[in-house]
Amino acid sequence: MRNMGLASKVVQILPTFDLESYLRSRTAAVDRALDCYLKRYSERSGNIGKAMHYGVFPGGKRIRPILVLAAGELFGAKRKTLLPFACAVEMIHCYSLIHDDLPALDNDDLRRGAPTNHKVFGEGLALLAGDGLLTEAFHVMSGPEVINDLPAERVLKLIRELSHAVGVAGLVGGQAFDLEAERREVDIGVVEYIHVRKTGALIRASMRIGAQVAGAKAAELRRVSRFGEALGLAFQIADDILDIMGEPAPGERAESGRSEWNKATYPSVVGIAKAQVRLSELLRQCRREIAPFGAAGEALRALADQVINRALKTNGKSLSKEMHG
Amino acid sequence: MRNMGLASKVVQILPTFDLESYLRSRTAAVDRALDCYLKRYSERSGNIGKAMHYGVFPGGKRIRPILVLAAGELFGAKRKTLLPFACAVEMIHCYSLIHDDLPALDNDDLRRGAPTNHKVFGEGLALLAGDGLLTEAFHVMSGPEVINDLPAERVLKLIRELSHAVGVAGLVGGQAFDLEAERREVDIGVVEYIHVRKTGALIRASMRIGAQVAGAKAAELRRVSRFGEALGLAFQIADDILDIMGEPAPGERAESGRSEWNKATYPSVVGIAKAQVRLSELLRQCRREIAPFGAAGEALRALADQVINRALKTNGKSLSKEMHG
Repeated sequence: MRNMGLASKVVQILPTFDLESYLRSRTAAVDRALDCYLKRYSERSGNIGKAMHYGVFPGGKRIRPILVLAAGELFGAKRKTLLPFACAVEMIHCYSLIHDDLPALDNDDLRRGAPTNHKVFGEGLALLAGDGLLTEAFHVMSGPEVINDLPAERVLKLIRELSHAVGVAGLVGGQAFDLEAERREVDIGVVEYIHVRKTGALIRASMRIGAQVAGAKAAELRRVSRFGEALGLAFQIADDILDIMGEPAPGERAESGRSEWNKATYPSVVGIAKAQVRLSELLRQCRREIAPFGAAGEALRALADQVINRALKTNGKSLSKEMHG
Repeated sequence: MRNMGLASKVVQILPTFDLESYLRSRTAAVDRALDCYLKRYSERSGNIGKAMHYGVFPGGKRIRPILVLAAGELFGAKRKTLLPFACAVEMIHCYSLIHDDLPALDNDDLRRGAPTNHKVFGEGLALLAGDGLLTEAFHVMSGPEVINDLPAERVLKLIRELSHAVGVAGLVGGQAFDLEAERREVDIGVVEYIHVRKTGALIRASMRIGAQVAGAKAAELRRVSRFGEALGLAFQIADDILDIMGEPAPGERAESGRSEWNKATYPSVVGIAKAQVRLSELLRQCRREIAPFGAAGEALRALADQVINRALKTNGKSLSKEMHG
């Protein structure tokens, strides 16, 4: 027992990757670039430009664009070359949130504590702001700063890949399937099917796009893809665990309405404990895939740890210790 | 008087361009290609695939994809090379109609006599079907059949141009401006501003994309652009005249609700007669731009004539005779 205590102190002393400062600098770079792309609309195009800007600012964790940067930097790409793709990916994420919040889908009044887009600008303008952001993503990816830095064939391949990941085979298909799943009993296979498309596809694509901008080799790209797949699923499960832990369990609730417990999520179908076991597996998988990159993979490893660990702690006690060995 | 009668008979005898058979063959080619792109989704992806297919079939006049083909064929491009772009343009047009029909915007129950997408599939799925079609347009334009036929640089330029034409600077911006214009008095300048974006931008882009697929020279492209601009505006004015002529004038109506007379259109702002004068000017402009191409421009000339002339006839009497000289 003494020895274990010592070991844990040694781990504390080892120089660790400063994830907070890494995230701060990358988020700032992404925000500056996004603001630059969107400002020309918000300043000149009336309320539609403002609604698009509001849909992107203030941002959340900016996890997808940071994955583009991290995966690209892993193989030596310049941040300047990666940023247009990082912004495109975030615009698509934000468009999907705006549309998801509309009364036609989730009918949410709040997002990150602020009124949703349609609550501020009205449903019509919010719908169009989402359309505008999706369109702008492709506009940015085919812009002059991209064409100057990369071979046109590679850019086309990236546009093809992203449009696949966020179309019927990915994001849009996952949302549609989720919408239809609300009306019936779902098993864990269906839940995973939805997650892989609705959240996983864009996170995996973010990783792959970063790596391909940098010209990663086929074997490296496969490794990055597997990391992205595991992280994408983990990200969704972690979010759902955190959502559900903030809510009373079924039966304890007095009010009616749609609860986190009714949604097609991992914890609502198999329970929180089993969802956390799956999360631990996914974290191990992420670490396994990133290990061969050594120190260069520290950012991605730390990012996966943070995303996943927050949902492995219950009541202040970390469940993740068991997997750290 | 006798002489004039003879002259008109001579015109009848001259071999004329068979627009009907031209449109039939082009529409069939576009429909086959669209069905091929969308069938993989409608057969495998549940209701979202069906909703996307329903949003595209049965089609309307397919004017935009036919313009892509006609402008491309004018400069010798192969139909096979043009078709992916023709389909992309039509998918974008159809997405905009699905979203436009939603309760958040126009709240229409019928389109071309059939229930609108959200009436059949529900608002959530209709919203996602529109998103899916917009995304699929970019997926098609970056697909292998495009990359095999054209230099990647040119394809990227076309993606850039189309995303500009249908984003905030074009289609989406025009719809947003139109939505906001509903609440206030508009003058003819505002109406034209909306039309240029909401309808004109995609029609102009269709022409330019066809010409650029074919590798048209800069001067030719400028001519094609001017033709597209005039036709795009004419197309919208013609549609609005036909819509409004089917409705009783203000004051004659008993029922309340949004009427064609309340919308920001040419005929509702300046009256039908002045709108027809503007249409005649636009038809002359179209003919002037297409004249230098001689017989090769016959399809585009005949198309412009048909689009515009249908709104120059009132009570069966053609107003267009005066301009045929």
